Amino acid sequence: MSNPVLAEVFRANLVESRHRGAVAVADADGATVLAIGDVATPVFPRSAVKALQALPLIETGAADRYGFGDEELALACASHSGEPGHVAVAERMLASAGLDASVLRCGAHWPMSQAAATELARRGEPTALHNNCSGKHAGFLCDACGIGVDPTDYWRPQHPVQRHVRGVLENLTGASLTDARCAIDGCSVPTWAIPLQNLAVGFAKFATGRGLSPERARAAARLRTACAAKPWHVAGTGRFCTEIMQLFGARVFVKTGAEGVYCGALPELGLGIALKCDDGAGRASQAVMAAIIARFLPLSDAEQAALARFTQPSLRNWNGFEIGAIRVTAAI
Amino acid sequence: MSNPVLAEVFRANLVESRHRGAVAVADADGATVLAIGDVATPVFPRSAVKALQALPLIETGAADRYGFGDEELALACASHSGEPGHVAVAERMLASAGLDASVLRCGAHWPMSQAAATELARRGEPTALHNNCSGKHAGFLCDACGIGVDPTDYWRPQHPVQRHVRGVLENLTGASLTDARCAIDGCSVPTWAIPLQNLAVGFAKFATGRGLSPERARAAARLRTACAAKPWHVAGTGRFCTEIMQLFGARVFVKTGAEGVYCGALPELGLGIALKCDDGAGRASQAVMAAIIARFLPLSDAEQAALARFTQPSLRNWNGFEIGAIRVTAAI
Repeated sequence: MSNPVLAEVFRANLVESRHRGAVAVADADGATVLAIGDVATPVFPRSAVKALQALPLIETGAADRYGFGDEELALACASHSGEPGHVAVAERMLASAGLDASVLRCGAHWPMSQAAATELARRGEPTALHNNCSGKHAGFLCDACGIGVDPTDYWRPQHPVQRHVRGVLENLTGASLTDARCAIDGCSVPTWAIPLQNLAVGFAKFATGRGLSPERARAAARLRTACAAKPWHVAGTGRFCTEIMQLFGARVFVKTGAEGVYCGALPELGLGIALKCDDGAGRASQAVMAAIIARFLPLSDAEQAALARFTQPSLRNWNGFEIGAIRVTAAI
Repeated sequence: MSNPVLAEVFRANLVESRHRGAVAVADADGATVLAIGDVATPVFPRSAVKALQALPLIETGAADRYGFGDEELALACASHSGEPGHVAVAERMLASAGLDASVLRCGAHWPMSQAAATELARRGEPTALHNNCSGKHAGFLCDACGIGVDPTDYWRPQHPVQRHVRGVLENLTGASLTDARCAIDGCSVPTWAIPLQNLAVGFAKFATGRGLSPERARAAARLRTACAAKPWHVAGTGRFCTEIMQLFGARVFVKTGAEGVYCGALPELGLGIALKCDDGAGRASQAVMAAIIARFLPLSDAEQAALARFTQPSLRNWNGFEIGAIRVTAAI
C-alpha cells in the first residue's frame, strides 16, 4: 500500500522533493465524493479538528454565559501565531471565567509568527498564552467552569470536558474512539486516530448540520460564522487558513493540523474534506487543500487567480530569488 | 519507482507519519557497498557537499595565506546555527582578507539556534553573518581574494571560484555537472543535482584521498581533521552533525543538507555515504544516517548506547511528555 504523490517540490526544472498522501471528500450522508489513496486507515487529525473540539463550549451554554463573540469562538478553533491580538483574546477568555494563564496546561512555546517572536524576545519570554493552542485550551477551561466542574485536570482524557469532546468526535465522524487509538497531542490533550473518510463525513456534517441534533447543528453554524468573520483569529498574519477564509468567507472552512493534516468544509456543496501527507509536510498539505478547493468550488476568474498562489506557490531563497515552486500533481 | 519507507514517526503505538528515501554507501573505487532505493537519479545535495565546496580554499593556498586553523576550516564546511561563536569566526575570516560582512551575498536569516535568535532579537536584527552558510561564503570570498580575482560576483556560476568548485565536484563524484542540472541554492550559489551513488563515491574519496591528486587528498584530510577537532563549528549546540562528530571524532564525518540530504564518510572503512529522504525531512534523514553508522562502524557498547538516541529519538511535546518516537525501518 503506497499513497500517490500529491505534490512535487521543484528546484529550477527538477523535482527536488515529493510528498505522498491521501484525500477524502464526502457528504454528510457518508457518500464518498473523492477518495485518493488510503482513506480507511486511522490518522491523528491533531489540530485539524479543533472546530469539532470547540462544539461543547457552545453546547453547554458556556460561550453564552461568558458572552463570547466571533473573536473568542474563532480563537477556540485556532492554531494561532501567537501575535499580540491572539494572546489578548485568550487572556480575555480566561478572565471572563475568573481564570488566568496559570491554569493553562498546553505548555509554552515561542510564537509561530517570526515578527511576534522577535517582538516578544525584546520584552520577555513566551508563556502558555503564546502556545498556538491557547484559545482551544481557554475554551476547554471556560467549558469546565461553565458547567461547574473543577477545571484543574481539563486536559486529561477522563475529565468531563474531554469525554464530551470524544463523544462529539464520535457523533460527527462515526468512528469508534477506543483507547488503542488515543495518543497525546502536542498540547497534551488526547488526540484520537480517525480515518480520513470519517473525518470528511464529520466535516460535511459540520458544514451542513445534516445528521446532527438541532442544538449541535446550531453550534456548528455559529463556529463556522465566527471563523468566517474572524479568520485572522483562526491562524494569523500571512497564514494559509486565514488567507483562504479571508478570500472565500463562509464559502470555505479550512483548518490545519500538525503532521500534514488538513480538514475543511464547503458548505454550499455540502462537502467535507480531510487529507494528510504521509510525511507530515504542511507545505504540501496546504497546496493540496487549495487544489481540492479549486477542483470543487465554483470560482470566478478573480478567485481562480487568487487561489493560484496557494496551489502553485513559488519558492524563494534568502535573497528573494525565485528558486522553484510546489506543484500539485495530476493525482488531484 | 517508489523508494522504501526508511523511517516511521510513532505517536503512542501508531505510525503517524512515514518517510521514504534512498541510501548509497560506496568505496572510493566506485564499488557499491549498499544501495537502498533509487541511487541513480540526480538529487540536489545542497549543503551536504560544503566540505567538497571548501576544498579550493585550501588548494589555492588561500587558507594558508590567511592563517586559517581548524575553526575557520570547519566553519567553511558548516551549516552553522548562528551562535555568537560562529558569527565571530565568519567575521574573522572576512577580516583576514580585508573584507567585512557587506560583501556576503548569502542573504540574512535569524539564527537557527532559538537561544541565539532570542538573544539577537534583544539587541538587533540578523545579518548575512547569521546565515547558516556565512562560513562557506566567507571561504569563497577569501578564496577569490587569495587568488587575486575580483570577489564581487563570487556566488555566480561563471565566477572562477564557482567554476573551481564545479570542477572539484565533478572530479570527486564523477558526475557531469551540466547546466540542465544546475539550480540556485538557498544561499544563492549554484547547486548541481548529482546521483546519491556518485555522492557516496565522492565522500569515499574525501574520506581516503584515493583517486585524488596528492594536493587534493591533503586538502581533504585537512578539512576532515578540522571538522573532527571543531565539530561545534560545523553545526552548533545540540545539532546532529556536531554531536555525532563529538562522539566519534575523526572516525565519522557527517554533514546535513537541506531537503533531507545527508552525506558522510567512514574513513577507517574507506566508505562514503549519501542519502536523501524523498520528502525533504531532516528528522528522518538524520535518524537514517545514525542507523547507517551503527550498521557499518564497529562500535563499543558505550558508543552503541550513545548512538541509540539518534537512531530512535524520542519525541516530546511542549510539556516535555514523551508522546512518541522516530524509528528506522528494517529497510536499513
